[in-house]
Parts: sequence; structure tokens; C-alpha cells
Amino acid sequence: MEFDHNIDEFILMALSEDIGTGDVTTNSCVPYASVSTGKFIAKQPGVICGMYVLSRVFRLLDMMRVRVVPQVEDGAFVNPGDIIAEISGPSRSILTGERTALNLLQHLSGITTKTAEAVKMVAGTNAKITDTRKILPGLRALDKYAVRCGGGSNHRFNLSDGVLIKDNHIAAAGGIAEAVSLARLHAPHTLKIEVETESLQQVAESLEAGADIIMLDNMSPEEMREAVKMIDGRALTEASGNIMGSRDLRTIAETGVDFISIGALTHSVTAFDISLKFK
Amino acid sequence: MEFDHNIDEFILMALSEDIGTGDVTTNSCVPYASVSTGKFIAKQPGVICGMYVLSRVFRLLDMMRVRVVPQVEDGAFVNPGDIIAEISGPSRSILTGERTALNLLQHLSGITTKTAEAVKMVAGTNAKITDTRKILPGLRALDKYAVRCGGGSNHRFNLSDGVLIKDNHIAAAGGIAEAVSLARLHAPHTLKIEVETESLQQVAESLEAGADIIMLDNMSPEEMREAVKMIDGRALTEASGNIMGSRDLRTIAETGVDFISIGALTHSVTAFDISLKFK
Amino acid sequence: MEFDHNIDEFILMALSEDIGTGDVTTNSCVPYASVSTGKFIAKQPGVICGMYVLSRVFRLLDMMRVRVVPQVEDGAFVNPGDIIAEISGPSRSILTGERTALNLLQHLSGITTKTAEAVKMVAGTNAKITDTRKILPGLRALDKYAVRCGGGSNHRFNLSDGVLIKDNHIAAAGGIAEAVSLARLHAPHTLKIEVETESLQQVAESLEAGADIIMLDNMSPEEMREAVKMIDGRALTEASGNIMGSRDLRTIAETGVDFISIGALTHSVTAFDISLKFK
Amino acid sequence: MEFDHNIDEFILMALSEDIGTGDVTTNSCVPYASVSTGKFIAKQPGVICGMYVLSRVFRLLDMMRVRVVPQVEDGAFVNPGDIIAEISGPSRSILTGERTALNLLQHLSGITTKTAEAVKMVAGTNAKITDTRKILPGLRALDKYAVRCGGGSNHRFNLSDGVLIKDNHIAAAGGIAEAVSLARLHAPHTLKIEVETESLQQVAESLEAGADIIMLDNMSPEEMREAVKMIDGRALTEASGNIMGSRDLRTIAETGVDFISIGALTHSVTAFDISLKFK
Amino acid sequence: MEFDHNIDEFILMALSEDIGTGDVTTNSCVPYASVSTGKFIAKQPGVICGMYVLSRVFRLLDMMRVRVVPQVEDGAFVNPGDIIAEISGPSRSILTGERTALNLLQHLSGITTKTAEAVKMVAGTNAKITDTRKILPGLRALDKYAVRCGGGSNHRFNLSDGVLIKDNHIAAAGGIAEAVSLARLHAPHTLKIEVETESLQQVAESLEAGADIIMLDNMSPEEMREAVKMIDGRALTEASGNIMGSRDLRTIAETGVDFISIGALTHSVTAFDISLKFK
Amino acid sequence: MEFDHNIDEFILMALSEDIGTGDVTTNSCVPYASVSTGKFIAKQPGVICGMYVLSRVFRLLDMMRVRVVPQVEDGAFVNPGDIIAEISGPSRSILTGERTALNLLQHLSGITTKTAEAVKMVAGTNAKITDTRKILPGLRALDKYAVRCGGGSNHRFNLSDGVLIKDNHIAAAGGIAEAVSLARLHAPHTLKIEVETESLQQVAESLEAGADIIMLDNMSPEEMREAVKMIDGRALTEASGNIMGSRDLRTIAETGVDFISIGALTHSVTAFDISLKFK
Repeated sequence: MEFDHNIDEFILMALSEDIGTGDVTTNSCVPYASVSTGKFIAKQPGVICGMYVLSRVFRLLDMMRVRVVPQVEDGAFVNPGDIIAEISGPSRSILTGERTALNLLQHLSGITTKTAEAVKMVAGTNAKITDTRKILPGLRALDKYAVRCGGGSNHRFNLSDGVLIKDNHIAAAGGIAEAVSLARLHAPHTLKIEVETESLQQVAESLEAGADIIMLDNMSPEEMREAVKMIDGRALTEASGNIMGSRDLRTIAETGVDFISIGALTHSVTAFDISLKFK
Repeated sequence: MEFDHNIDEFILMALSEDIGTGDVTTNSCVPYASVSTGKFIAKQPGVICGMYVLSRVFRLLDMMRVRVVPQVEDGAFVNPGDIIAEISGPSRSILTGERTALNLLQHLSGITTKTAEAVKMVAGTNAKITDTRKILPGLRALDKYAVRCGGGSNHRFNLSDGVLIKDNHIAAAGGIAEAVSLARLHAPHTLKIEVETESLQQVAESLEAGADIIMLDNMSPEEMREAVKMIDGRALTEASGNIMGSRDLRTIAETGVDFISIGALTHSVTAFDISLKFK
Repeated sequence: MEFDHNIDEFILMALSEDIGTGDVTTNSCVPYASVSTGKFIAKQPGVICGMYVLSRVFRLLDMMRVRVVPQVEDGAFVNPGDIIAEISGPSRSILTGERTALNLLQHLSGITTKTAEAVKMVAGTNAKITDTRKILPGLRALDKYAVRCGGGSNHRFNLSDGVLIKDNHIAAAGGIAEAVSLARLHAPHTLKIEVETESLQQVAESLEAGADIIMLDNMSPEEMREAVKMIDGRALTEASGNIMGSRDLRTIAETGVDFISIGALTHSVTAFDISLKFK
Repeated sequence: MEFDHNIDEFILMALSEDIGTGDVTTNSCVPYASVSTGKFIAKQPGVICGMYVLSRVFRLLDMMRVRVVPQVEDGAFVNPGDIIAEISGPSRSILTGERTALNLLQHLSGITTKTAEAVKMVAGTNAKITDTRKILPGLRALDKYAVRCGGGSNHRFNLSDGVLIKDNHIAAAGGIAEAVSLARLHAPHTLKIEVETESLQQVAESLEAGADIIMLDNMSPEEMREAVKMIDGRALTEASGNIMGSRDLRTIAETGVDFISIGALTHSVTAFDISLKFK
Repeated sequence: MEFDHNIDEFILMALSEDIGTGDVTTNSCVPYASVSTGKFIAKQPGVICGMYVLSRVFRLLDMMRVRVVPQVEDGAFVNPGDIIAEISGPSRSILTGERTALNLLQHLSGITTKTAEAVKMVAGTNAKITDTRKILPGLRALDKYAVRCGGGSNHRFNLSDGVLIKDNHIAAAGGIAEAVSLARLHAPHTLKIEVETESLQQVAESLEAGADIIMLDNMSPEEMREAVKMIDGRALTEASGNIMGSRDLRTIAETGVDFISIGALTHSVTAFDISLKFK
Repeated sequence: MEFDHNIDEFILMALSEDIGTGDVTTNSCVPYASVSTGKFIAKQPGVICGMYVLSRVFRLLDMMRVRVVPQVEDGAFVNPGDIIAEISGPSRSILTGERTALNLLQHLSGITTKTAEAVKMVAGTNAKITDTRKILPGLRALDKYAVRCGGGSNHRFNLSDGVLIKDNHIAAAGGIAEAVSLARLHAPHTLKIEVETESLQQVAESLEAGADIIMLDNMSPEEMREAVKMIDGRALTEASGNIMGSRDLRTIAETGVDFISIGALTHSVTAFDISLKFK
């Protein structure tokens, strides 16, 4: 699993925000020449994500002297007590960078762990778990990567690399057929056209209009099953709508949909418990 | 409750990240001249935060034409169905900015709601609920503001505006007395000195060394009560350590500590459910 | 025709680059209080693009005092001597911003004029003229807008909003079928998959693999006609390869392809002749 | 020929603009471990410029692993089929950076080739070919370097490092004498003063006023010859005005002017044909 | 006296640096609704500079609500007790911006006052007082403006808008004649060529080589007088070298030099005493 | 003495500001291949600061080739003629970076030298010399470091890491007791509270209100002595007010105050005389 984005600027911002005008405690109490070694240890079971970020935080903070040695890869399952990474170098640099590294590592592993749970719940069905744009600013690339590490797939990255026609677009265009037609005229021909539907009637209209993907929004499992049957492979299907809140993920997956998109994977993350122990 | 930070650059980044090279759906399907009005509506009970952010997103996206009219103030309790804000203007601008605005509004209201619950739990005791540095990059100022809106108080903003001596600083300095002494020598005299302790023995040493604040980390309620008694007003006290996970907040508050710091307020946020309904 | 991108940062960079540490000539010779009016005049026939840029240059240079009044809209055909815009305000600001404004206006109108010529050449056929990624840094959004103003359509904006499998991708994946299959697995499901082909054999393989778009690269008109026939509406077709250099655009359009992509629209632009005349 | 500017920020912008949120095709189809070698090959005769840019694109994209080995130097004449540079490294990095590198290399070589042609046309005369400020934003330093590589010389870089008094400055100041006098008073004494003239009368006035350089704008060759004679070495002379459009460059050079400035060198560039062939 | 540079980014940096994560004192103690009026008052005699900066600090901090009303213009002489500007608006904004505004106003007025003293000392002679590049980072445009406000003139802004050949350039080129010849060949023809000389022999060589300006570095007044005589108007002359340290400015001016450049104007500034008094 | 801030961006800005679009003199006259060695030499007695900056300027300008070898450490006393650092590498890089390096080195050594003089004057007393926020934009971290190198200590870095209640805060809050109480309620509990007083009456009120630090502003030595006696160790004391202008530093120190803050250390700096001599 490779992470392809350049996140150096983001990490530098994170370090700058947390360090402010200097780590007054560490600079006062810890001798410049002091060196330490430590271990990042999992304190709960789950799936890890963020090894590249972890290394990069310390690389950007103190390029030549801190050494981070990963003990697992992104996507690995760990048990409480497992060592995630070892670190050695100047005590000052390790202490100053610790919180920035942990904040990100715990957040990303939280997403990956939750995604892996969802993927497991739909195992054996046709359905793929996918994310949404419900992600905090600055974290888009990292959070979407964490979803992939948990076995999920990514929906469009942002508003420019996918056409998703929602109720307000339909209303403004004057109908599903009109909206799809306008999108085909004006959007780049390299993008598929997805339509959000709330009834079987709308599904039928979307199919008729030639939609490439049909989102089944907040439908009951029965409606979804009906819709999948009606579409019959002529378009991709995507279940959506407050899933992983109150609704049964397995039941939805068994309706035969191609994708289930879940906002909670990224908008309501529980930090994964990890601590740094010094020797 | 006023928000004093300049977050324009942050919001512009958020918009840019979500819009990418253009909202292809909206620009294709919605006429340039179309105008809409809508309402931001709470879909759960809780405390709202982010009204300034909400206004600012649309101000920065379309300065002259979108009008956001708040219906509540930050810190207000709402019930499901309550209107949080009204919005009117070009349909394109509203649709393009919707997700960025909601992502932040739901996140901040999630923090404020959780904080308000914690504050309520300790009502009537001496204890104040306070945050930590366990916050995602870029969100420091906003998340800490959300904590204040929920009735909490803020701990240090970053590593430069508070001295907090932890176990590794103590080890590197050669003891609590030495660490406090070094901090007094090197850190600006305008900052208080806080020491993290794990035993009554360490509490005694910190008191002896003249610490201004003593953190009681992962202690049992009994130990905390003992520590508060020993300190007897000569230093501020702060309870810490995985609180709001497994531990009873009320019990801790009743030990007499001055502050209870809770990482989960900001590191594990559940998005508050809000939706934008068009008329 | 609306331009949706925020190009203020780009224009500020352009102004800064051209002004350097100050317009020494104007600041020395022209009184601070001097005001002027002038006209931007076409000196050749063609199609204009850049009215928003023109206004924005002077808005950013001197927000309150320079007034630009467009006399035509983007996409309008003009003859030599036609007035494109009128300008009035402080002489210093007009003189200092003149070159930056003209550089962009002449460049964009050059693209639009060339695109309009190509569109005219294929009038009455099925073919749409489309651009490529052969565009100078910083100008992507503007140049692609200029193509639209000339009646062309836009291909993918960059490497992230379209899948285009070329010979080296095919070689690395082990064949067309394998490459399409990998793209379907890993790329977001919101993107279409396009394959570049150089023979009818490859066209057949792409069709078999389920490509959404098939590029016919450097084929003869005869081969293109054959390919269009073979594909028979099951995928979109795109002609490509040094077109508008030596090849006959009309002949290609008459083969029945859906799109003709032309790099020269943006990589080899002849500046459109426009001058600013003061009264 | 050395290029002295730091263009890393510019190249990073170019890469970012073209890569967007990731090269979805390459990342999907090409294995992470795949390596390739290739050659940049000239497909037309002309003069190359941009070897440093070419290396720098891949250095900034993948610092440690891509190796670019130039086979020619900037300013070298090549024939079709000549190898310009060899490249080897991870296939992904080469494919992702290819277009950004070619866009710049082809543009700069286009300028250098055109400049070299102009320089050749005036060979044996006193005249030097020089550029103007008619250059697209962001490209000022690179384009001016390309002109030097073709044997041209550079006019002022921007509005702050040269005084050039044009008709509107003269009008605002109240005459040529007044304008030159104001420039001498207010502009730094380290800059020469150039006056744009459109008649022999104005040439005489400029000479009288003590201009260091006299521009002969849109004059006939006869007028230019007359002007050169009148000036007689007391000021430098510069021919200007739509040259390389309709006017005969050689004829102008033979009038004895010191410089001929040509906007078309940089405002109307034909991309030089270069391709990257993989082995 | 107009200031033409855009210094908003610089002022925003200054405010950000001084405010950090928020003015905790003001935000705690001063009610949001409190308004104040105050006066900036000179506490020493001298010449004021920085009125635009003063207004701009408060404009950028609180655009709509703080009002700064200048009572003097840049370059005005004031006596102790004179009111420089009046200010009114929210108490919080005034208190938070006060130090940033004063730091710049006091610094610039310090430069202008010192420059005005130097200009006065040479009154009646041919000599103009000019600055150098001995200026702290970020302050180049402002400090050079302050010199102009004091009656001085500006030397080159930076290394790109003036040719100044020093001893090491001469050594590297192989002699004064060679260095001047190389500069004439390679530097833009819009720049004058200045040579730094330390002896009459070097003055003679520079004159012979056709230097436009000859700097007389660390020469005695007698040598300077001799040099001015030798040059006899064929080049501009500039006295330089630790002037305003130990050397008599008047004596130097009376040697007949055209310019006297003084590093101490900007490298050793005494802040001008100004205070803000609230009513 | 270690400098912990990242100042690379600041130095890059300084270089960019001074180099502009290129060092036309050096690039014209000095061969690309020329190498030089030189020495930075003190030309006055004093204390040096800025060795890290010096190295960093040349590291950022020409990473691989210029070598700077410090001969002293920050805080070292030097005599005229002492070698501060040796430098070797490409002549072009050394000449182009010389002024930027010297501007900072001379400024910082000026501050350190002045601070060391003040520290020496109060030797043997209880008083520590401390700085203020009267520092030019961009230089905060460097100037405060220079104060530490001279034996001084740092006051708060900016408005966010220290509470300092001044007369206007007191007026707005309604009295000293109210202001201290508000600060205790709203400011982070990790910050001490300092009150500026102008009379013994105010000192008494501050003490009563529980201030942690009491500033004695513009008091006579007698009043200061009285205040120190009244406070009797219950709060830290800080003398302030135009010190090092007209007032006797030693006399103030002997009143028993803990800190003496001096704005002139940083707002009125005399550049330390250093030159670079080539071999």
C-alpha cells in the first residue's frame, strides 16, 4: 500500500501549530545532547495506518538524527501490546514531535480500523465499502488513504473529479433527464455521471436518461433490492444514507448493490489508542 | 462568545480542497442565474458551535451575494428540527459550499455537545473541564473555541505557552526538583510550571520544588483526594488520564481537583447531525 | 460563458513579476493625481477571450479607482478597429497594469480564435474539438476556459480526473485487458476509462476489455473510419495525434469520431493583436 | 550557459497543477516496483533549451530515484532523431512527470529556435536581438533565459529595472524634456533612461534631453537610418514595433541600430517537437 | 510623498507574529463592546514617516471599525507633544494592534529623522544623500521610502537593478577594463555601470573603461576632490565608506561629489519616541 | 547556546529580496568556475551572535558547495581583527550572499553586545536583564535569541504567551482587582498574570488581587525600593520604562527588583562592524 501524496507542507503546518514559538519545557529541562530510544505501542486491537506519516513527522523535524523503524505496515492488524514502530535519536526532537505524530497516527488508525470492520461485515457479498467527502479540511488525501488501507475503496476525491447529481441539481435543471443531458453536454467526457435517487420512479428515470451510476439514497432494503433488479447491470449502484448509524450494513450489502458509501468512516472517528514508551 | 482567530486562510484551503478544479455537477446542471433559499436544521439534540465559520465559508466563496442569517448563537442548545441558520443566494454558490460548511459545523457542534455533557456531569463541584493538545492539524483554534462554547476552559494552546514537565523531562533532568529548577531558569518568567505526577511521592516532590500546577495522572480517586489534601491550595491541581473512556467523571470531580483534562473531547469527535434543506 | 476559477493569486503573481519593486518610469514621470481614459482595440479579426481577466488585473492593482467597461463578451467575434473595452482611472495604475493585462488578453484570445477556426472546420459533423494537457504551467484553468469560449470542449483537467491508458501503461500492466481491469479495480468508480490505441487490433481489444472511450492515435482516416464502424457506439471515440499540424481536420471529422483532441490549440499560441489607446 | 534563477517553486506548482490529487492511471496500472529507461528525442531541427528544467522536474518529483542524463547543452543545435536526454528510474515517476517536463522543454526550445533564426538573419550587422516584457506570467526568467540561449540579449526584466518613457509618460509629463528630467530626479541614478520616439523630431528632442537610449518605434528603415545618423553614438538605439510580423529584419538591422526588440520571440511561441520514447 | 509598494502581506506577518494565538490579556479583561479613542503623540523632535503603515495595520486588523485619522504627512517635522494621528474604535483592536503599529512607525521615523539631519548637513552643496543595501530583511521597500521622506535618494534596490563592480569582481574579471567590458556584454543595456575605486589610479582606469558612475570608497577628502576634478562630469561620482561614523559629512559634500551613500541611515536606527495615549 | 527556530523561510525571503531577479554584476563579471576563500573579521570589540544564520544563508543559497567554518560560538567576546568565520566556495555564491549574511550577523551581534553591556552593569545584584516586544517584524525569534546570547532573559514572546495587564486594560475592566479576576477566569491557567503599576497604591492593589508579577513602570529608584519591600517576595518584580535612555541601570538594579526590561536592546540597535575579506 503506497501513499502517493506530498504531505510535507501539511506536516510542517501541524508541527508549527503544535510547537508555536518553541517547546519551552523540553528546551529548558532536556540537555541538547541527550539521546533516547522508545517504542510506539498499540493499546487496543485494530488495524494500523500512518506509518509513512509517522516517519515523515520526525524526518521533517530533525532530518538527519531521528530514526524511525516501522515494525508493521499500513493495513496490518495489531493486538494490544504490539510494537508499531521503534524510534531513536535526540530526546528533544522525539519529545517535541511526539504529539503531532500520535495525533495523526491515532486518527488514521481509527479510520482504518472502522473501515476494516465494515468491510468484514459485508464479506462475501458483491458490495464494496466506499467513503464520502465528509472529511475535515486538510485531511482529504490521508483519510481516503486510510479507507483504502482498511479494504475500502474511494469515491470521488472532490467536486471536480466526479459528477453526482443530487435533488437540488435535478430541481434546478428541471428533471433527471434534463440534468443528465446537461452534464453530458458540459462536463468533461472522461467523467461518469451519477444520479442520487430516492424512489424507484427516479431510478427508472435515471436509467432511461443513461446514468452511469445510480445512488439509492435512504431506501429500505426492499426498495434497494427492487432497484438493483430493475437496473440489472446497466448502471452501477450505490447505497447511501446514514449507514452505520442505525441501519444494518449486512442487510444492505445483501440487496446486491455495488457500493455502500459511509460518511461516518471519516466524519466520526474514534482515535486508536497508541502510546510512546521510552526505555 | 467571540471567536478571535483569523481562519480565512484555513477556510480557503478547505474550499479549495473540496472544489478542486471546479464543481462540475453544479456548473453543468444549475443555471448561473438560479437563486435558492434554504435552512440548516438540527437533526439531534445538543449544543451548536460554528456559526461564524458557517458565515465565513459563504462569505469567502461568494462575498457579495450569499446571505447567511444565523438563528442561534454558538453555545445554544437545540432540539431536533430547530433551525440553526437560513441561507439565500445563487444556487451554484450554496451547493458548492454546502459540504465544506457542514463538515466544520457538524464537527465543532460535536465537540461542544460532548464538552457540555462533561461540564454538566461535574456541575456543583470545584472542577473545570479542560482540553488537551490531542487535536487534528489545522483545527487547534477552532476546536479549542468549541470547548469554550461548551463551558470548558482551555489548557495551553501549544508547546510554547505553558511549561508541562512529564516523566521523560524529569528523567532527562535528573529529578523533579532539577526539572522545575531548570524550567524556572530557562523558560520565560511569564509562564507557570506544571508537573505531571503519578504518585503521592511525586506530588510531594513537586510541591517542594515549587510547581505552580500539579497534574495527577491516572491516579485512583482515593489517591487524587489524598493529593488534593496534601497540596492544600499551594498549587493548582489537574486530573488527567483516559478520562471519559472508562473512568467516572463525577467521582473524579468530587476529589476536589481544580481541572479535569479530557483528550477525547477533541480526538474522538462524533459529528453532530445537521442538514441543509432547500425550499 | 462564466469563468469559475479563482485566479486572483495568479494575477497577483503576474503583477508582482512585472512590476518588480515598482514602476520607476511611471512613478517618476506621471503625477499621482493624473487621470486617463483609454480603449482596448482589436487590430485583427478573431474571437475575444479574457474580459474577466482584464477587469480583474485592474481590480487587484487598484481596487477602488480604475474602471473597466467591457464592450464585448468572451466568445464574441471582432473585426479590426472594434473596441473591446474602455478603461478610465488614475494614469499611473493604467500604465502599470497595461502589459500584464494585454499579455493575458492577447494569449487567451489567440487560443479562442484558433479553437473557433477548428470548430468551424468540422461544422456539421459529429466531431467535437477538445483540448489536451499540453498547456504552460499556471495557465491550465484559463487556457481550458479559452477553448470553451471558442466552442471547444475540455478533455480531463489533469492526471487525477480521468483515466487514460497509454502504451507504456499497457506494457507495464501486461496488455490492454489487464490494464483496463486494474484501472477498474483501483481508480475511483466515478471516472471513465479511456485507452489509447494505434491499430484496429488494439481497438478490438479495448472494446473487449470494456473501455469507455477509445483514442485513435495517429491513425489514417481510413483506419479511423474502420474503427468507428467496429466500435459502433459501444464506446466514445477520440482522434488524436499531431492534428492541425499536417493533417486535414475536416477529413478526420468525417470519419465519424466523437472527439478530436488538438495539442496545438494551447501549446503553440499566436498572440491576438490588441492595443490600448489613450485618449 | 548557466541558469541562475530558483525555479523550484514554479516547477512544484506545475507538477501540482498537472498531477492534481494523483495520477490515477499510472497508480492503477503500473506496479510500484516497475522501472524504465527512455530517451527524449528531437522530431524537428532547431536549438534546444531547458535541460536544467528537465532535470529539475524529475528531481523534485522523485529526488532519489529518477536519473536524467543530458546528451546536449542548452543552445545546442539538433536534428530530427537526435537524442536530447536519457532518463531512467521508476516507471511511475517518469510517466507522471513526462507531460510537465515536455511542456516546458518544448516551449523553451521553441523560443530559442526562433531567437537563433532572428540572430542569424542579422549576422554581420551591428544589431543585437533583444526581447520584451510580452511574456506569460511565471515564465519571465525562463523565457528570457531561452532568448539568451538563442544568442539574443535581454531588455529590462520588469518595470523596476529600467526607465522606458513612452508616449503616455511624455504626455503626462508635458514633453520629452520634462519627462527625462523627472526620471533623472526620481528614478535611482543606477538606471539608464530610454525614450520611445515616433519621429525624427522626437529623436532630436530626446537627444537634447540627454536620453541614454532612444527607441525608434514603427519607423521606416529610411527614418531609422536617418535617426541613427543624427544620434551618432551619443545614445544607444533600439528598433521596435511589430518586427517579425510584416517587417524585414535584415533591412532594419542594416540601418545601423544597436538593438532590435521583438515581442513575438516570447508572445507567439511554436512548441518545439520533442517526444519521450521508452525502450 | 506616496508609498507605492504593497506591504499588506508584511503587515499581516507582523500582526501574526505579535498576536500569536490571541491577545489573552485584552480578550480576558476588555469587553468586546468597549470603544476607545486615543492619540499618537511625538515625544521628541524629528521627522515622521509611516502614516500609511499606521493606517494599514489597523485596516488589516479590523477593517470596518477602527478609524485612524492622520494629523501629519510623511516627511513632516514635529515637536514633542505634537499629535501625529488620532485613532478610535473597539478597544480590543486598538490594544492588540498598538505594538505592531508603533514598532514600525518608530523605526521609520527614526530613519527619516536621521536622513533629514544628513540632508541638512550637506545643504547648498551638489551632494545628494543616498542609502545602501544595509537593511534588515523584509524592510527594504519601507526603509528606502523612509530615506526618500527625509530628502534622501535611493541607490539600487537590490542586486538586479544596478551594476556595481567591487574589488572582488575586478579581481575575478582580471581588471577594471575587463570587468566593465563584461558587464556591458552581459548585463541588460538598460542599467548603468558603477565601479568602486580606492585610488586615483583606479578612478582613471574606470573613466577610461567608460564607467557611468564611479564610487570613491574610503578616500580622504583631498583624494575625493582630486577624483571629482579628474572625472570632470564624464561620470557620476559617489562617496562611500563608513560615513556618519567618524567622517565629516559636510567636508565630503564640499569635495563636489554627486552622491554620498550612508549605510548607517538604515543599519543602525534609533527608534523615534512616540506613544499612544488613550483618552 | 542553541537556536531552535526554523528560520529557513525568513532567510530565503531575505535572499530573494536582496537578489531580486539576479545578481547582474556578479553573473556578468565573475566566471562560473571561479572559487574563493575569505574571512569574516570583527572590526570592533563586542559579543558575536548569528553563527547559525551565517551558515544557513550560504547553505540555502548554494547547498552543496559553499563551506562556512565558524571560528567562534554565539556569545563569544571578540576583539577587532579576530576572525569570526572562514568561508570557501564558488566566488559567485559568496559574493551574492555576502550582504544578506552580513546584514543579519551585524544586527544580531549589535543586540548581543548591547545586552552583554547591560548584564555587566547589573552584575552582583538580583536583577536579570530582559527584553520586550519592541522588535521589528520577522526578527522576533532571532532578536530574542541574541538577547539570550548576551546573558539576558526573555520576556513573553508575543501577546499569547503571557498576561500583562496595562493601564488601559485596568480602565476597561474597572480596576486592578477586576482585571486580575477576569484574567484568571478567561486566560489559560498555565500563564502567570502580570500587572503594570505606576504607584505604590497600585502595587498594593495588585498584590491584594493576587498578581504573579508586578511591573514597576517609570518609578523612581526610591519608589521601586519601597515597592520591592512591600511585595516582599509574594510576587516577582519588573522595572520598566525608558531604561538605558536616561536612567541609571545600576541604581535600578540595586533596588532589589527581579527583572529590568529594556526596549532599546532591540528597538535601537547599532550594527556591529564586521567585514568579509577575500584572500
